[in-house]
Amino acid sequence: MQLASLHEHIKRRIDTELEQAINQLPDTATRLKQAMLYSLTNGGKRMRPLLVHLTGNMLDIPETDQRTISMAIECIHAYSLVHDDLPAMDDDELRRGKPTCHIAFDEATAILAGDALQTQAFTLLCEHPMSDYANQHRARLVATLARAAGYQGMCGGQAIDLATTGDAIGVAELKQLHQLKTGALLTACVEMICLVSPDITTTHQRALCQFAQTIGLAFQVQDDILDITASTETLGKPNGSDVAQGKNTFPSLLGLEGAKQELAKLHHEALQALHGLPYNTQYLIAFTDLMVSRNH
Amino acid sequence: MQLASLHEHIKRRIDTELEQAINQLPDTATRLKQAMLYSLTNGGKRMRPLLVHLTGNMLDIPETDQRTISMAIECIHAYSLVHDDLPAMDDDELRRGKPTCHIAFDEATAILAGDALQTQAFTLLCEHPMSDYANQHRARLVATLARAAGYQGMCGGQAIDLATTGDAIGVAELKQLHQLKTGALLTACVEMICLVSPDITTTHQRALCQFAQTIGLAFQVQDDILDITASTETLGKPNGSDVAQGKNTFPSLLGLEGAKQELAKLHHEALQALHGLPYNTQYLIAFTDLMVSRNH
Repeated sequence: MQLASLHEHIKRRIDTELEQAINQLPDTATRLKQAMLYSLTNGGKRMRPLLVHLTGNMLDIPETDQRTISMAIECIHAYSLVHDDLPAMDDDELRRGKPTCHIAFDEATAILAGDALQTQAFTLLCEHPMSDYANQHRARLVATLARAAGYQGMCGGQAIDLATTGDAIGVAELKQLHQLKTGALLTACVEMICLVSPDITTTHQRALCQFAQTIGLAFQVQDDILDITASTETLGKPNGSDVAQGKNTFPSLLGLEGAKQELAKLHHEALQALHGLPYNTQYLIAFTDLMVSRNH
Repeated sequence: MQLASLHEHIKRRIDTELEQAINQLPDTATRLKQAMLYSLTNGGKRMRPLLVHLTGNMLDIPETDQRTISMAIECIHAYSLVHDDLPAMDDDELRRGKPTCHIAFDEATAILAGDALQTQAFTLLCEHPMSDYANQHRARLVATLARAAGYQGMCGGQAIDLATTGDAIGVAELKQLHQLKTGALLTACVEMICLVSPDITTTHQRALCQFAQTIGLAFQVQDDILDITASTETLGKPNGSDVAQGKNTFPSLLGLEGAKQELAKLHHEALQALHGLPYNTQYLIAFTDLMVSRNH
């Protein structure tokens, strides 16, 4: 199967699964439930579930484990977008061409929906079906996801992003910011799959994490490039919004050509990390190509 | 030891432990770290750690397990206060006589500090030292805490609170709101201790949870009463703020005398739930008295 068809399949499947998970919650707070559902099924690209699936298939991990891990990661990802879009944060009114959660609902509901989606990730990780083997490692899965999402990962990255917006920083600092803000959760996709793999060696695990960290950074460089080269329509959010907000980006620090060179370098490094793994890495290679060549 | 001295001891101990847990985080995002610390050590009454400790001692649970459970619960509690105080939520500028997190720092930092404190709770529950027995039950502890904190607990309760503020509701609905908003986390204190107790029977577990649910409600009734009878100075926040915000309270629905009668009824029910347990419930009885007779 081509990666594009597989991606389409994964997208449809996770959309349905997340919808089911939210729909089966009781109707005690319907507006909050609607906001959670809205934010979770808002047309996301589902790159993280795709990465979980490709890595999981490569390592022969049962679908049920892949599914639970993907759902938990998407809950964390969705919560982070809802909170990042808030007026006090990035103040974005559009995401993927649709009103952001606090516009479609209201600010209080958006804060709570983000909060409840974060909790939902950990509920899923502890209670959603998994294989017997994975079932024994749920606490380690929670620890891995929490580390990637919290102060030492995504939240820390967002804090550095806010603190440095408007001030010029160096490339090393920008990389650290994105390694925390975007890279940590992408790396967690791979780490969590490794945790439920009975056979993988530490060396191979390390190579896969290195791969994930590198494509996480490449993803962000491409994001920054698209922010200035793609149209608002293609992006589903206003073009040039990073620059308008005074954000540090790879093109703002390196120039557009410099950013493109950085992207090519990271692309090469990601493929290098896969090199020598005793698995069929064909799909992960295609995934890397997709990440760096996407146009939205 | 008298309950008051024990409470003082627990307060000091958990303050130190939480401070240490935050201080040992790396300095990647110092302002966020400061905000997390500020919110966690903001002079809280530590009723939940006290309940964990009293239940834990009664059931002979190792101190190390009590500590980890208490720390995780206080992280969830602190995060919920930071977010509840935000301008889009209850818009409170004072808590325990000090500026709330978004006043002392800023709104974006307060949102992130709440987010990161929630994650921190799950990190602690998975990684902080516990006994061998408790160590095998970490995933169930996470599931219990997540359920109490998320849509089916605290977040759901806060959503109902926001949705009903300004509209008169019935006593049953007000009770459900508080059972979710405050009761779920207080009940989780007891549930989590029961989870790490190798011996407790389902019947006794159920009685202890019933006890916790009842004191959770009693705590809230007393809170509502204090909001109109205590001074701003004693409360550490403006007196009458519930009424000013158009919140439904037990006195607003039942009158002050009716609310006091409800409190007495709940007090009696809590003691009834303890009756017949084959443990020394002396401290839990004293705790109940403290909950209903506290003046701030």
